[in-house]
Formats: sequence, structure tokens, C-alpha cells
Amino acid sequence: MRSRVSLSRVARLATVGPRGAPHLVPFCFAVEGDVLYSAVDAKPKRTERLRRLENAALEPRVSVLVDKYDEDWARLWWIRLDGRARELPPGPEAEHAVGLLAAKYPQYRERPPAGPVLRIEVDRWRGWSAS
Amino acid sequence: MRSRVSLSRVARLATVGPRGAPHLVPFCFAVEGDVLYSAVDAKPKRTERLRRLENAALEPRVSVLVDKYDEDWARLWWIRLDGRARELPPGPEAEHAVGLLAAKYPQYRERPPAGPVLRIEVDRWRGWSAS
Repeated sequence: MRSRVSLSRVARLATVGPRGAPHLVPFCFAVEGDVLYSAVDAKPKRTERLRRLENAALEPRVSVLVDKYDEDWARLWWIRLDGRARELPPGPEAEHAVGLLAAKYPQYRERPPAGPVLRIEVDRWRGWSAS
Repeated sequence: MRSRVSLSRVARLATVGPRGAPHLVPFCFAVEGDVLYSAVDAKPKRTERLRRLENAALEPRVSVLVDKYDEDWARLWWIRLDGRARELPPGPEAEHAVGLLAAKYPQYRERPPAGPVLRIEVDRWRGWSAS
């Protein structure tokens, strides 16, 4: 489960907005133990930019999904990580997170993420596999 | 945006649980106008089976994400559909939904989904593209 997650290039992050509706974005991440890190990067964003951070500041509970689709449905699997998210202040842990992200993604080595780092402490790993 | 969504084989569904935490699953779907249909199918499930339905019954607001990952980040895109979900009772609309699902997925033609049908009325389509 852990290796599938750490090898996955993209995951989806669900947060809950101030009026209680769910919000969903794809995101790149690095995992270390029970902690997931992601950063707001240089990919162009509009007003969406900080929505996930604003939501997490008010409701830290988040859900992260990694899944594999295949036309052979016997090969489907998904892994869900439920946890609590918070934005890291600038400092050693945020720098460490950016280092992990750069180690995983060459794209981040070319253009290091300049934005805030989101830290997700995973409380529960849950996996499902069709086979 | 609509053709990207209708051609996508999988999407992710975020619901909100009774205690306000987000819940996330991948799902297969068919789209018709501003309505998305999905069905609980024969893929093995455990206690997860009806969680999305239970959540939607208490909090109909849901979010659906379709996204494309590519190592060339200039080719990334995603589309998010925010709407309201409800379980359909057995009847003509549920049968119509199963027909749409079977038309899209040969897997459903071999093994028609036997479980409840979820109907999502989309209030808002939002798309993002890196390029």
C-alpha cells in the first residue's frame, strides 16, 4: 500500500469548504511515513490558488485518494488516506518537504515550488483491490 | 470540457460524512447533459459499499473530479463538477441510467450493475488547463 502510494505521481485531495460542501483537486505529493507533503507550485492557478489551504485552515480533516484505472476491472485498486492537514510556516520542515518533492519530481527540480507547503498527517490508510 | 468528461473512464467522487469529514472514492459514470449517473456494481466491496449513498442522503452536495496527469506538466488539465446527488428509486430513470452506463462500459454489458443508481445534478462545471 505504501509503495503504491509513494510511486503514484498524482493523487486527489478532498477538503470541506466553509459552508460544508466538498472541494476536490488533483495534486502532486511526497510521502514520508505517515505524512504527506504538497506545495502550491508554479502551475498557473486562478482564484483556486489557495482554496485547499483556506479550507484546511477551517476544517483540517481531509481525504486523499490514489487509484489505478484499468479496462480490466480485475486490476483496479485504490488507496485512501484520511488525515488532518495544515499549512506549514516557512522553516526547516517546509524546506524538507520541498526537498522531498524535488527528489520525486524532476519538474520541481527545474522550477521549485514557491508557494505554501501543505502537511497532511495520515490517521488512516485504507485500501481496496479488485483481485 | 463536456467531451473530456464524457470520454473519461473514471472520476473521483467526494462526499461529506455525517461528522463533516470528506470521503473520496473513484467511480465509473455516464454523463447526459448536466446529469451524471453511476451505479453500485458487482466489483467487490466491503463495508464501503454504501458509504457514498449514505453520505449523499444526509448531505447531497458532492464534488466530482476528472483529471489528466502527464509528466509534461504543460499538458495537465482537470475538470470539476459540483452538484447535488441523490439515490434513484428503481424505475425508468434508473433503468435509463444503467443503459447509459452499459453503452459506455462493455464491462457493464457483461455484468450489469445490480446496485442502486446515484444521480448527480451538476450545478457548476469548472475546468483548468495548464496550457
